[in-house]
Amino acid sequence: MTSAAVKTYLLGLQNRIVAALEAFDGTPFRRDEWERPAGGGGITRLIEGGAFFERGGCNFSHVMGDGMPASATAHRPELAGRAFEAMGVSLVLHPHNPHCPTVHLNVRFFQATAPGKEAVWWFGGGMDLTPYYPVEEDVRHFHATCRAAVLPFGGDDEYRRIKAWCDRYFFLKHRNEPRGVGGLFFDDLNDGGFERCFGLTRSVGDAFLPAYLPIVERRRDVRYGERERDFQTYRRGRYVEFNLVFDRGTLFGLQSGGRTESILMSMPPVVTWRYDWHPDPGTAEARLYEEYLVAKDWV
Amino acid sequence: MTSAAVKTYLLGLQNRIVAALEAFDGTPFRRDEWERPAGGGGITRLIEGGAFFERGGCNFSHVMGDGMPASATAHRPELAGRAFEAMGVSLVLHPHNPHCPTVHLNVRFFQATAPGKEAVWWFGGGMDLTPYYPVEEDVRHFHATCRAAVLPFGGDDEYRRIKAWCDRYFFLKHRNEPRGVGGLFFDDLNDGGFERCFGLTRSVGDAFLPAYLPIVERRRDVRYGERERDFQTYRRGRYVEFNLVFDRGTLFGLQSGGRTESILMSMPPVVTWRYDWHPDPGTAEARLYEEYLVAKDWV
Repeated sequence: MTSAAVKTYLLGLQNRIVAALEAFDGTPFRRDEWERPAGGGGITRLIEGGAFFERGGCNFSHVMGDGMPASATAHRPELAGRAFEAMGVSLVLHPHNPHCPTVHLNVRFFQATAPGKEAVWWFGGGMDLTPYYPVEEDVRHFHATCRAAVLPFGGDDEYRRIKAWCDRYFFLKHRNEPRGVGGLFFDDLNDGGFERCFGLTRSVGDAFLPAYLPIVERRRDVRYGERERDFQTYRRGRYVEFNLVFDRGTLFGLQSGGRTESILMSMPPVVTWRYDWHPDPGTAEARLYEEYLVAKDWV
Repeated sequence: MTSAAVKTYLLGLQNRIVAALEAFDGTPFRRDEWERPAGGGGITRLIEGGAFFERGGCNFSHVMGDGMPASATAHRPELAGRAFEAMGVSLVLHPHNPHCPTVHLNVRFFQATAPGKEAVWWFGGGMDLTPYYPVEEDVRHFHATCRAAVLPFGGDDEYRRIKAWCDRYFFLKHRNEPRGVGGLFFDDLNDGGFERCFGLTRSVGDAFLPAYLPIVERRRDVRYGERERDFQTYRRGRYVEFNLVFDRGTLFGLQSGGRTESILMSMPPVVTWRYDWHPDPGTAEARLYEEYLVAKDWV
């Protein structure tokens, strides 16, 4: 059965990632196993007040139900009302240090079934980086690792498609501003058969640690003060705005009766809003907007 | 012309409220007048880092366009595609002191027009209180003032309808939790003719200062420490979740190309998220959930 293989992979991925992050931080992640009254459940692994991570989580969930939620069928109205099964691993990490970027990973598998009809399945996934004080070398490394993960599954064309989708998806329309420097995003993936799609999804999941850890290993000891912290908490407001207004995964989870505390592990620990604030020209903060919060080919 | 009379009232209401709040705080509000490229504009009046208010605003806007945004027609599909005109005053105030509640007021007027068809108009509005450490006397005073504002326009039945609508509307489904202690909420109001509906809307707008100011006058000097402040910033997360996930006014503004910085003046200045946090039984924090975050008849 195909979904059993996906589940095995996802649970293993969660374990590997959490083990590596625990080793990096030196703090064990909390573990909460939960059941969903309407069917399914998940394993939430979460850190708060770590030595390095201020807040973050790496969650597995596997949910099922009788009617697809609207957020999952917006682009597939023909599936409305079908029974569904959704499983995935979602990760968001918010470091204390503003010189270290926030990062997001998600890999997921959906199946929509209806009596007497063939099951429709697809994979989705991606990862994206949200730096506050970016370093070009880090951004290039992240994108190069993302690209290498996709290349075996369709070459540069497939990479460019998935990279461009990320730039379009993680975009705050009401700010006319990207969430961060992008990475990968794909959805509705079933071209080329199950093995190819599962392979690409695994490759993206497996690329997370080599894409992110070298960056925070390099930047974890960079000093920062109140100014950098203020800018970080201000920029985290954009993360909240994106996730609560636009993110399909968040809305799917909240609409499908998901476990709120697990879904909202993506919320940053401390966030500030300030009216109509803009960085002074020529500052490091202005450089984020001018040089990084623009769609670019980084590789 | 009816909408001109509404506009005059709304601009006067904004001025009266801001003047009273400036006097209360001792800090002048910032004033930004803006134009909307697609038609209309507004006047944003905002305070940050006041002596009493940590952040807040009282905004007027008057926007128009060719196609009603989805958030305005969710319950009126027959108006989709009509030209629209929307004007309103929106207020959100976040005091520094956790013993003083956050408050929200909105009064608005919509018109949807189509060539060869009669214009469809309606009023909407309401106010609601979101305390952190509520005092029963204050909550009763707020609701009694709300009730008195509605009574001349339909008696207790109309009050109960509008009060119950508020309880339903300001509800976080994903938390199964009300946003605060409620107040008034109405939309699609055009029963009884323009004068009656405009009168009720004015009465609600005019009731704001007498509903809120006596509460903060009584509580402004209550001492607080880190514990109360932590609870306040945590609870403010719920305010963010409601406004970005559910609030029709916020979504209407963001979808209709409104001025983002004015719309998001409702965001609290400092917000925290903590995983699966619950107050200890018997504490003042637990009392908020048990005695106040439940739908109740307060008058």
